[in-house]
Amino acid sequence: MTSDHQAGAPGRIMAAEIAEQPAVLRRILEQGAEPIRAVAGQIAARRPRFVLLTARGTSDNAALYAKYLVEVVLGKPAGLASMSTTTAYGARPDLTDVLVVTVSQSGGSPDLFASTRAAREAGAVTLAVTNNPASPLAEASEFHIDVLAGLERALPATKTYTAELLALYLFVRGMRGEGGAAARELPELAEAVLARQGEVRALAERYRFAQRLVITSRGYGYPTAREAALKLMETTYIPATPFSGADLLHGPLAMVDNVSPVIAIVPDGKGGEALQPVLDRLRGRGADLMVVGQREQVAAASAGFVLPAGVPEEVQPVLEILPLQQLAHEITIARGQDPDAPRALAKVTETH
Amino acid sequence: MTSDHQAGAPGRIMAAEIAEQPAVLRRILEQGAEPIRAVAGQIAARRPRFVLLTARGTSDNAALYAKYLVEVVLGKPAGLASMSTTTAYGARPDLTDVLVVTVSQSGGSPDLFASTRAAREAGAVTLAVTNNPASPLAEASEFHIDVLAGLERALPATKTYTAELLALYLFVRGMRGEGGAAARELPELAEAVLARQGEVRALAERYRFAQRLVITSRGYGYPTAREAALKLMETTYIPATPFSGADLLHGPLAMVDNVSPVIAIVPDGKGGEALQPVLDRLRGRGADLMVVGQREQVAAASAGFVLPAGVPEEVQPVLEILPLQQLAHEITIARGQDPDAPRALAKVTETH
Repeated sequence: MTSDHQAGAPGRIMAAEIAEQPAVLRRILEQGAEPIRAVAGQIAARRPRFVLLTARGTSDNAALYAKYLVEVVLGKPAGLASMSTTTAYGARPDLTDVLVVTVSQSGGSPDLFASTRAAREAGAVTLAVTNNPASPLAEASEFHIDVLAGLERALPATKTYTAELLALYLFVRGMRGEGGAAARELPELAEAVLARQGEVRALAERYRFAQRLVITSRGYGYPTAREAALKLMETTYIPATPFSGADLLHGPLAMVDNVSPVIAIVPDGKGGEALQPVLDRLRGRGADLMVVGQREQVAAASAGFVLPAGVPEEVQPVLEILPLQQLAHEITIARGQDPDAPRALAKVTETH
Repeated sequence: MTSDHQAGAPGRIMAAEIAEQPAVLRRILEQGAEPIRAVAGQIAARRPRFVLLTARGTSDNAALYAKYLVEVVLGKPAGLASMSTTTAYGARPDLTDVLVVTVSQSGGSPDLFASTRAAREAGAVTLAVTNNPASPLAEASEFHIDVLAGLERALPATKTYTAELLALYLFVRGMRGEGGAAARELPELAEAVLARQGEVRALAERYRFAQRLVITSRGYGYPTAREAALKLMETTYIPATPFSGADLLHGPLAMVDNVSPVIAIVPDGKGGEALQPVLDRLRGRGADLMVVGQREQVAAASAGFVLPAGVPEEVQPVLEILPLQQLAHEITIARGQDPDAPRALAKVTETH
């Protein structure tokens, strides 16, 4: 038990929920997998041709992960919904053959409820993925998946993010009638990663006085880059800008030279291979580069965190985010702020 | 002729291309509208049910604008493609009934070429929107729209962005057999906006020493927020983070208090109405807020730039970006840098 977990210490709620993640992943595999597979089977029988994902904030990054899975694993075209086209402009697209997946921790945002109801009326198969089966969103959707993360008290979402990732992974594999065997080791692996908090604390020292951060990845790692940036911004207030590796080369690389340290999430697999030219370019420019990835990638960088080897690429995001959640937490404390009391966060955001 | 246009002055190439935009818009309306409408008619006859948009960097922001138009004006579900699912992971979704629109200034990026060719093989109707009809991308696509912007020499894209917006607007309206009358006044209006460079220069003084910026909008204005952030980052190197107004309330608002000035693009219409609670919240927190929008919105902010009244909301983005391009240019010069020589920009990015 570190001091972070003691009652009253800054960030103790967020730290406790970060630490809870292996147990949540285990609960999903033990109690959630069967109902998720049942829902996936029913939805697969409806043969959706196109998948739209709707979410906000942290859940939007989980939705982006699901988009990659849908395209790669299911071979179906997918898109992230622009909610305001429905809620502000009254667009009513024909959604026959479309699966609309809405991802929301609370299931309570009025705009997600409104856009889901509109999608259902427009002919879509609707699925809500939430942490609250009694929520308005769950009730407005034809199908529901409970991510079983338990009450989330910290304002920066952590355990609901990884719970959403795993639930969405099991759902997509379930659409193919598969059990998602690649996820089986995740609880133990997550435990081992989280136990190395001392390493993260040392990394946090690097960024204690940083004025900006650039975070990059490609493929399955890109949602991790976005979620890490969001987590860092909402806790440390350091502007952390996420770029896909390809977009980074298109212009914002100019920000990097001696000005902005870079955190790269390097997936072990095709995403990492696609990122390689970006890493080479960053190293060639002398960028300060921290890598979350395999040992040889970390060794070639200025600093980093080594992830477990041999994990299938499509479930690596569940592990990648863990040291980055801890990093956000540690930097915030090092800067004398309280991760449990960000200045502006509300748990259910009432946008319409 | 300001000093920016003189040979050898820092930023003169970018300034000249910013100034060229009214002429480019006029050229599109006079010479481009007819061919665009013809392409739109042929594609409409194929009755696509879904639209996927593929692009990188500045063109990705134009693609996002088109996504809003497709959903609102055409009532078709749309998504932005995640290119790496095709180019890195080899995903081959069934794209029957899908229109794939690839937007690229140069038409020369190998990954856009590869993903477009894969889409065509997978059954998609393919449309390339480029500034180069002789490009590999244009040739790989079944249909092509030339945005007629003329050679773009500056590394930060300006005239090709507004040219892409207008071409995409005419295309979407053309899909409905309409002429896009809302665009008719844009060249004159753009001229009038750009003539007020002195106002922008005064605004640039506010941000000369800024260490970060938050840029927000909703609806049709959101692509402008993203493009303004990209333009500011690649020229001034100030980390400028774009958020949809709804996402801003979900967490990153904590960054704003007395720390980060906010630039809000407030569309005159439903997007602006949906943004209103965010503006109220920002003002209530005492945020430094610069507004690009209507007179009463600017009057209620710390500073701003008044846009012409009475312009239909769906073409306002063509005007909104103009003072923000000038702002990026002016801040860069005020900080002693050269907008024509960003440290890392390549005109054609060779990502694979």
